[in-house]
Amino acid sequence: MTTSQNSTQAYLEKNYDRFLTELCELLSIPSISNETGHEPDIRAAADWLARKLQAIGVQSVEVIPTERHPLVYGQALAAGPSAPTVLIYGHYDVQSPEPLEDWKTPPFEPTVIGENLFARGATDMKGQVMASIAAVEAMLHVGHAPVNVKFLIEGEEEIGSVHIADFVTKQRERLACDCILNPDAGEMPDKDTPSIAYALRGGAFFRLKVFGPRQDLHSGLFGGVVENPINALSALVAGLHDEQGRITLPGFYDSVRALDDAERLALSHLPFDDDYYLQQTGVPSLWGEQGYSAVERIGARPTADVLKFEAGQHKAAIPAKAEAYISFRLVPDQDPEQVDQQFRRYLEMHAPSTIRWELERVSGGRAVLTSRDSRGVRAMQHALQTAFGHPPILQRVGGSIRAQLVFNQTLGVDSVLTGFSLFDDNLHGPNEKIHLPTWKKGMSALAHFFYLLPET
Amino acid sequence: MTTSQNSTQAYLEKNYDRFLTELCELLSIPSISNETGHEPDIRAAADWLARKLQAIGVQSVEVIPTERHPLVYGQALAAGPSAPTVLIYGHYDVQSPEPLEDWKTPPFEPTVIGENLFARGATDMKGQVMASIAAVEAMLHVGHAPVNVKFLIEGEEEIGSVHIADFVTKQRERLACDCILNPDAGEMPDKDTPSIAYALRGGAFFRLKVFGPRQDLHSGLFGGVVENPINALSALVAGLHDEQGRITLPGFYDSVRALDDAERLALSHLPFDDDYYLQQTGVPSLWGEQGYSAVERIGARPTADVLKFEAGQHKAAIPAKAEAYISFRLVPDQDPEQVDQQFRRYLEMHAPSTIRWELERVSGGRAVLTSRDSRGVRAMQHALQTAFGHPPILQRVGGSIRAQLVFNQTLGVDSVLTGFSLFDDNLHGPNEKIHLPTWKKGMSALAHFFYLLPET
Repeated sequence: MTTSQNSTQAYLEKNYDRFLTELCELLSIPSISNETGHEPDIRAAADWLARKLQAIGVQSVEVIPTERHPLVYGQALAAGPSAPTVLIYGHYDVQSPEPLEDWKTPPFEPTVIGENLFARGATDMKGQVMASIAAVEAMLHVGHAPVNVKFLIEGEEEIGSVHIADFVTKQRERLACDCILNPDAGEMPDKDTPSIAYALRGGAFFRLKVFGPRQDLHSGLFGGVVENPINALSALVAGLHDEQGRITLPGFYDSVRALDDAERLALSHLPFDDDYYLQQTGVPSLWGEQGYSAVERIGARPTADVLKFEAGQHKAAIPAKAEAYISFRLVPDQDPEQVDQQFRRYLEMHAPSTIRWELERVSGGRAVLTSRDSRGVRAMQHALQTAFGHPPILQRVGGSIRAQLVFNQTLGVDSVLTGFSLFDDNLHGPNEKIHLPTWKKGMSALAHFFYLLPET
Repeated sequence: MTTSQNSTQAYLEKNYDRFLTELCELLSIPSISNETGHEPDIRAAADWLARKLQAIGVQSVEVIPTERHPLVYGQALAAGPSAPTVLIYGHYDVQSPEPLEDWKTPPFEPTVIGENLFARGATDMKGQVMASIAAVEAMLHVGHAPVNVKFLIEGEEEIGSVHIADFVTKQRERLACDCILNPDAGEMPDKDTPSIAYALRGGAFFRLKVFGPRQDLHSGLFGGVVENPINALSALVAGLHDEQGRITLPGFYDSVRALDDAERLALSHLPFDDDYYLQQTGVPSLWGEQGYSAVERIGARPTADVLKFEAGQHKAAIPAKAEAYISFRLVPDQDPEQVDQQFRRYLEMHAPSTIRWELERVSGGRAVLTSRDSRGVRAMQHALQTAFGHPPILQRVGGSIRAQLVFNQTLGVDSVLTGFSLFDDNLHGPNEKIHLPTWKKGMSALAHFFYLLPET
C-alpha cells in the first residue's frame, strides 16, 4: 500500500463523524421524485450536492436542468490524461416514504439507533453517494490522485431515469471515461461479505384501467347485471400467472436467455437459500416460478407484480372503473416494446366483453449484463477484500438501474456495480436504514479502488 | 273523493314551492354516515327534522340518541284509536359523495336543472322523507285526519341501521301500528309508472385482508420469491364467480329459495329488459348468472361485488398487505351467519399458503319478503293509480333496507314499500338527483293513501 493510499484511509477515519453529519444533512431533504410537490426539495438536494462537490475540490460543478429534475455534474481531473478516469454515477432522489404509519422514526429525521442510521434514502442511495464523495474527498485532500473522477448524479432514478439518456448521449465527450463506478447496486448478503453485481433486470411498467358502468352504481339495485370492474381487473391480474408461477403473456418467454450450467453452478454457491429469504421477508412460505432457485428467480428470470390496485370507495356502489399499476421485471434478451405488445395481446384474449380497458406503458428498459472479469471488477474485488477482509460475491441483482443501461448502450466502457446495502436495509420500504460500520468500510473500499485501478 | 282529500291535494299544490325550498335546506346538510367527521352534520339534520315535525303539528317529537347516530321520532294521533295508524319510516343520512370530481354540481349545494334537483340524498332519501312530511302536513292542516301517523327517521341506514333494531324491540308499544309505510324502496321504471316493492335483498358485508411480507419489499430485489398480496387477493376475488356467473362459496345456493313459475311469469312482464339495463348503466354488455333474467338476477338471486380494493403505494414495492371490501346481496332464505362460514371455508380452501388472511364481517342481514296483497298494498295501488294515472308495478328490489327486516321481525304488521326514484337518479353515485314532477306526484299519492287506507 502506498503512502498516499494509507493517508487517504487515515483521512477517512479522522473525518468519519463529519461525513456522518453531512449524510444526515442530505437525508433531511425530502427529495421524493415519485410524489408530486417535492420539486423544491429535489432542487435543494441537487444544490446541496453541488456545493459539497465544490467544497471538496471538484471542478466544473454544474446543476444541469432537464425537463424535470436536474442532474449534478462535476469533475476532478488532476491525475492527468495518462491516469484512468472513473465516472461515478449516483442519484439523489428517493422513493415516497408511504405508508408513513409503518415508520418507527420520521423518514426525513435521520436517527441513529445502535449501529444503524434510519432515514428514507439512507441506503438507496444517499449513503452510497456520500461514501463515494468521502472517498474522493480523501483522495483529493491527500494529493497525487491516482485517477481522474467525474460525478454524474441524477434526480430521476426512482421515476425511471427519464432524462439522463438524452444527456449522456449528447455529452458523450464530456463523460468520456475508462470505467464507470455504479454504487447503486449493493446487496450484501451479510455485513462481512461485500458484493459486486454483474446483472440488473430491466422493466416494463404499465397502468391498466378497466371501465365498467358509466358511473358508480348502487350495488343492490344493479348487482347481478353488470360486471364489476374490480372483479374483472382481479381476474386479469390473477390470470397473469399460471399454476407453475409462470407469466402467461403470449410469447413472454420466447426471448428469455437461458442460464448456462456454469453460471447456475456459480449462483448455487451464493449464500442465499430459501431460509435466507424466508427470514428477510417474513412470509409464511416462498413463492415463484417452478424449476428455479430463489436466486435465479430474482436475478435471471422475469417477474410480474402489481404495485398498486385502486378501485372503489367506502360506499355500497359498484365502481365505474378500477386500475392497477403492473410492473414486469425483465431479463436479457427481453424487449419492453415486445412485452407491451404481449400484454395487449393478453388483454385482447382475456378481457371480457362486459368491460372496456386501457393500457398505458409508463416506463420500460432492457436488462443489463456487465463483464464479470473487467479491469474495474478485478480492482474492486481487491479493494473490497482489503476493506472487508473477505472477497466479494459476484451476483445478479433483481432491481433495475436505468442509467446503467444508458451507460452500457452509449459509453462503451466497463462498469463496476457495487454498493453497501444489507438485505434488511428496507430499500423502498418503511424504516429504510444503512448499517454504519458497513457504510464506513464501503467508503474505505472505494478509496482503495481508486489506488488499485491504475495498477490492475 | 272526500272534501278533505281534495283540500289536502289543494294544500300540497299551493305549498309546493315552499316544500321544495325546505327540501333544499335539508339537502344542504352533509349528513354523511359512512365517512367519519360528519357527526355535527348528522346531528344538524336530525334537529332540522325534529323542528320541522313540530312545526307541522306532530307531537311528542324527540331526537333519540343511540350509541352512534340519533333517531327522530314523532306522532300525530288525532284521528283517534278507531282509525288506522301508519308508521312512516325514513332515514336522513346519506352516502359519501365521493368521487367528488365526477359531480357536475356540488353535492351539498342543491341545484335545479330542468325538471331535476341534483344533490346527494335527493332521492335516497331526503326527497322521499320530505314528500311524506308534506303529505302529513297537508292532512293535519286540513283537519279530520283519516289516519294516525308515527314517524321513525334514522341516521344509520347507509351504515347498516346498526341501532334501530334495539330501539324497535324495546319500544314496540310506542311503535304499535296497523301498517308500515316505507318510502325508501322506490325504483320506478319510468316517470309515468309508479312502483310497489315486495322484496328486498339481504346482505353480508366483509373486509378481507391479505398479508404477505413483513413489510413493503423492493419489487426488483424480491420480485420472484414472495407471493404479492395484491396478486393473491386478486385471485381470491376472481375465484368468487365461476364461468356461469355463479358464486363459488361452498353451499352458497343451498338455502336460496327458488322462484315459482307464477312469480317468474309476473316478473317477466315488468318493463325491465336487457336493453333497459344497457341504457341505464352504459356497460358494453350485461353480465350475470346464467339462466336468469336481469330482473331475476337483481331481485331474486344473490350476488357478490367488491366495493373497494385497496393495496400498494405509488412506488416500486411489493406491498405487505392488500384488502378488499366484499358485499354479498342475499335472498330468502340465506343466512348471513352461514355465508360468513361459507366464505371462511372458501378462503381455507383457496387461499395459498404463501400468504395469511383475515376476514371481518362488517354487517349483515337477511332478505325481506312482504305481502303482495295486504290492505296497505291495495290502498297504495289505488293511491298511486290516482296520482300517476297508471297502476303501479309490483317488483322485487335488489337493495337492502335493514330497518324493514327489523319491522318484519318485530312489529308483525304489513308493510307498504314504495318511493319515487327513477332509475337514472344515481342512488349512491355522483350526480344523484330527484325528478321534481315525480316527487310532486309522489307526495300527492302519499296523501291519497292516508285517505284510502281506512276505506280499503
